[in-house]
Amino acid sequence: MLLYDSPVSGNCYKVRLLFAQLGIEYERREVSVIDRSNRAELLGALNPALRVPTLVLDDGRSLAESNAIIFHFAEGTEYLPEDRFERAQVLQWLFFEQYSHEPFIAVARFWRIAGIDPPPAELEAKQRGGQAALRALDRHLEHHDFLVAERYTIADIGLYAYTHVAPEGGFDLEAYPAIGTWLTRVMAQPNHVGITD
Amino acid sequence: MLLYDSPVSGNCYKVRLLFAQLGIEYERREVSVIDRSNRAELLGALNPALRVPTLVLDDGRSLAESNAIIFHFAEGTEYLPEDRFERAQVLQWLFFEQYSHEPFIAVARFWRIAGIDPPPAELEAKQRGGQAALRALDRHLEHHDFLVAERYTIADIGLYAYTHVAPEGGFDLEAYPAIGTWLTRVMAQPNHVGITD
Repeated sequence: MLLYDSPVSGNCYKVRLLFAQLGIEYERREVSVIDRSNRAELLGALNPALRVPTLVLDDGRSLAESNAIIFHFAEGTEYLPEDRFERAQVLQWLFFEQYSHEPFIAVARFWRIAGIDPPPAELEAKQRGGQAALRALDRHLEHHDFLVAERYTIADIGLYAYTHVAPEGGFDLEAYPAIGTWLTRVMAQPNHVGITD
Repeated sequence: MLLYDSPVSGNCYKVRLLFAQLGIEYERREVSVIDRSNRAELLGALNPALRVPTLVLDDGRSLAESNAIIFHFAEGTEYLPEDRFERAQVLQWLFFEQYSHEPFIAVARFWRIAGIDPPPAELEAKQRGGQAALRALDRHLEHHDFLVAERYTIADIGLYAYTHVAPEGGFDLEAYPAIGTWLTRVMAQPNHVGITD
């Protein structure tokens, strides 16, 4: 399989982390997240959103959206519960991540990495939204070792990806102790790889 | 079951539409989308994101995120394909909706409904993002009757919810003819209900 990938992207990292833990082999092709001028040419036929990660299967079919990709490959493995309600809870966290977490924390981090200096009001809105997401996550983790079913699943992979690099976006994780211990639990899972590995 | 609901919310409407088509009975409790001061009290124990829709099952467990709810209830029905790759494609469109479509089209519509008058640059950013999402949707529907598997699924429900009211957010759908005919196909499905029904 071929993964259109960016080393710095937490969304791409979710796929790389699950694939490492499942022992899935694949090729990586790096796509710039700064210069997007060739996106339509590169991804137009594969992903309507023109984003990475985009995965091309061996039979030529393509799949996009990080959380859809990890859900697909986790089905039937230990990384996705068999119980129907628990699977729905996994999806709840993954949709929370894409709507209430990623647009704040990942974007604030991207601005710093790309050297973009937005108006203070926009920076402040990203901080406010990101803090709200981290508070919600921390509150849940005060009473749970993992996000769903008390075991490591793709919900943890999905939320770990941008949470563990949130300090690169200016978010201080010391205010969220339950997140801190959860991060160490995620990192201790067999075959864990880092975002820069 | 009890649905914490807002009549104007397209996210809530997704759940109401699927439940109508599945013949599922439930109660609705209206939550204001303008005055959010009681959200923590009302939803704090049920949904970390404090948003509607939030669903409380008969056994007291709760489930949130519109697309997680409709995925859960569609499993095993005609509204979600059995084929594993097609289910992943459904999820791809639902994540596309929450990341690349709803934050632009639904928010622009909400501002109008709530009488909020944001800075022109913000309005323009919403228009630009919404048009990009509609272009991606239209391009796909030029070659397909429905979003996935050439039949009506929850991917169509998920994208229909805010697309059909996009004009209320200032988006002109006449520029997207393939979307127009797809909307009529969705409306023609058995047991369809409108957002105000």
